[in-house]
Amino acid sequence: QYTRLNVFDSAMSSLYVPPPKCLEKRFVAPQRHMFGPGPSNVPPRILAAGAEPVIGHMHPEMFEIMSDIRSGIQYAFQTRNKVTLAVSGTGHAAMECAIFNAVEPGEDVLMAVNGIWGERAAEIAERIGARVNTIRTPAGSCFTNEDINQALARHKPCVVLFTHGESSTGVLHPLDGIGDICHRHNCLFVVDCVASMGGAPLYMDTQGIDILYTGSQKVLNAPPGTAPISFSERACEKVFNRKTKPVSFFLDMSWLANYWGCDGKLARIYHHTGPVTNFYSLRESLAVLAEQGLENSWCRHQEVAEYFHEGLENMGLRLFVKDKNVRLPTVTTIVAPPGYDWKEITSYIMKNHKLEISGGLGPSVGQVLRVGLMGCNSSKASVDMVLEALKDALKHCHKSRV
Amino acid sequence: QYTRLNVFDSAMSSLYVPPPKCLEKRFVAPQRHMFGPGPSNVPPRILAAGAEPVIGHMHPEMFEIMSDIRSGIQYAFQTRNKVTLAVSGTGHAAMECAIFNAVEPGEDVLMAVNGIWGERAAEIAERIGARVNTIRTPAGSCFTNEDINQALARHKPCVVLFTHGESSTGVLHPLDGIGDICHRHNCLFVVDCVASMGGAPLYMDTQGIDILYTGSQKVLNAPPGTAPISFSERACEKVFNRKTKPVSFFLDMSWLANYWGCDGKLARIYHHTGPVTNFYSLRESLAVLAEQGLENSWCRHQEVAEYFHEGLENMGLRLFVKDKNVRLPTVTTIVAPPGYDWKEITSYIMKNHKLEISGGLGPSVGQVLRVGLMGCNSSKASVDMVLEALKDALKHCHKSRV
Repeated sequence: QYTRLNVFDSAMSSLYVPPPKCLEKRFVAPQRHMFGPGPSNVPPRILAAGAEPVIGHMHPEMFEIMSDIRSGIQYAFQTRNKVTLAVSGTGHAAMECAIFNAVEPGEDVLMAVNGIWGERAAEIAERIGARVNTIRTPAGSCFTNEDINQALARHKPCVVLFTHGESSTGVLHPLDGIGDICHRHNCLFVVDCVASMGGAPLYMDTQGIDILYTGSQKVLNAPPGTAPISFSERACEKVFNRKTKPVSFFLDMSWLANYWGCDGKLARIYHHTGPVTNFYSLRESLAVLAEQGLENSWCRHQEVAEYFHEGLENMGLRLFVKDKNVRLPTVTTIVAPPGYDWKEITSYIMKNHKLEISGGLGPSVGQVLRVGLMGCNSSKASVDMVLEALKDALKHCHKSRV
Repeated sequence: QYTRLNVFDSAMSSLYVPPPKCLEKRFVAPQRHMFGPGPSNVPPRILAAGAEPVIGHMHPEMFEIMSDIRSGIQYAFQTRNKVTLAVSGTGHAAMECAIFNAVEPGEDVLMAVNGIWGERAAEIAERIGARVNTIRTPAGSCFTNEDINQALARHKPCVVLFTHGESSTGVLHPLDGIGDICHRHNCLFVVDCVASMGGAPLYMDTQGIDILYTGSQKVLNAPPGTAPISFSERACEKVFNRKTKPVSFFLDMSWLANYWGCDGKLARIYHHTGPVTNFYSLRESLAVLAEQGLENSWCRHQEVAEYFHEGLENMGLRLFVKDKNVRLPTVTTIVAPPGYDWKEITSYIMKNHKLEISGGLGPSVGQVLRVGLMGCNSSKASVDMVLEALKDALKHCHKSRV
């Protein structure tokens, strides 16, 4: 029916790039236990939602899905903030969205660094010309509210960022009281809950958090590619009254808030083409969380983590985070077993148990093994599987005399 | 097995955000003919690929998929550029990626504006502190190479951006010769082919294009959320030797090139969590294009477009782009039928034919109807469907005396 052109203009033939052979092979993804720090396994129900037919990014049905997503995020974050939506990108995009919108060039910010995420936030803020101050505490530990109060008094930042779940070190940072301190110092309280949301108690409004964001691929068990975010009234006041435009059009909250119907305006203006199928799966993952109950999810993650930690200690392994009260229930950091090459352990377990656990990241590289049990993976059955795999690895991997 | 917590701490109960009712309803996406300017329909094969189980963003199998994607993009772009990858975002993210990486604050750029995309590029460059110059030509028309030569001589930009497929006006901008002009003026030639790639001849290397990007949701028929991009040697020389860091860490090519294995280094460093399932579907969409043959795809889009345009003119409708030679084969702009409200037409067709066509965008708002027939939607059968729907709409929608 249509003309077929099989011969490339001979004048150009030496420059012709032929169709690649590698694409002739059909790809089938292996089944794996995704027990690293993320992405976690995606249940069939959520994968199926993401395979529904594509509709338009501005069709009324899409706006309804986005409205459902907003409600789901408000529940998961425990917030009534109007400006609540999902960024069309992974957690890093949400971190940039928070900083790009909340901070103007030349402004002072304070990044609390107790792992890689604080470092990353500092780097992002530097790139847009903020004056970046940091407070630091060793990997595996937390800041006290007194530390924070002093740092705010010293640096007078307009924005301070904490990581609730430090997946690189395995620390769950306490948040109570920090919101009040920030507000007394007239500064916005930004929290990264990428690795903790749904796995540990978090009350955005009650805890006075001004900007909160997470990712889709951790406790929510959706594929990576969307990142829930929410802005308090106080945050909106700064974000929507800035003097300069944020460096990114794609992440500009005044456009995003309109696209998501959060700005109270009737007409929605085309901003970008939202990742339609990722929104389907994000909606489904929020529906699962709502069905199970947020508090039940928090509880289950805590109990499973304690069961896991006990099992590890019974094996003679040590936890990297000494203080039980600040151990992240979603991602556990285990002190790398002495005498072993951690890479051999993770490879052995991947090869023989089809199970992902990972090494350290940032300040914990070479020092720890990291195991993430998030959402549907947070169960005692998963723990038993990991413990079995670890025992097997320690038996079969090479051990030097320590 | 696990403790269930159903009662919220009573002290906070008035602040408790309950699980939203709206998420109790199961969502099923309606089947629609997606004949707007995108997203286009996604064939079951590509949807199914995107529903494969999630693996890690740094598993060896993932790197193989990414390598396949790179080969597929090299074919689709007709380039041998090493630095070829997919941005984890939609077309807008790719536009920002191109500009953020190629342009430093204070540098001169030239944006060719003949529709919304040139405007958008200008806005993005302004936000990062570039000195933005524009050349402009009315919606529906193109620039001559002489116009371009003069503008380059006058503005001496280091980067110039053209839109190959202007989906807001329906223009396919000729590219031959512009690369040479740019290089004579020592400037990088950036081309947006979001709406044209796969639907019209394009030879990145032969045409001297330095940065080329597209989206997944047009001719490729993958869900929105990934955006192929490629950088020439010349572009890399500027991008990898800049004095300042790009404003975005997420879109920083030195990180992305490493994540995609394009920088010649053995070790890949964690940058961000790639949208794993979107990469699956992007790979599959590139496999479909390779199977069908790029030139066949170009030919089919051209023939289908001509068949469509003839059908429209036979109905008494007029095409917005007068010059046949610069009509975009993927997205057709039809002069809004006089006497009708264009919104009534598009709504009527959506309601009665389950078929999306859209109104204008940017400079063409209120002036045109836009019909996109891209990838699997580019067929004479689709054309017949659209013509039928348009005839029906013109018969039943309200017409004022003109």
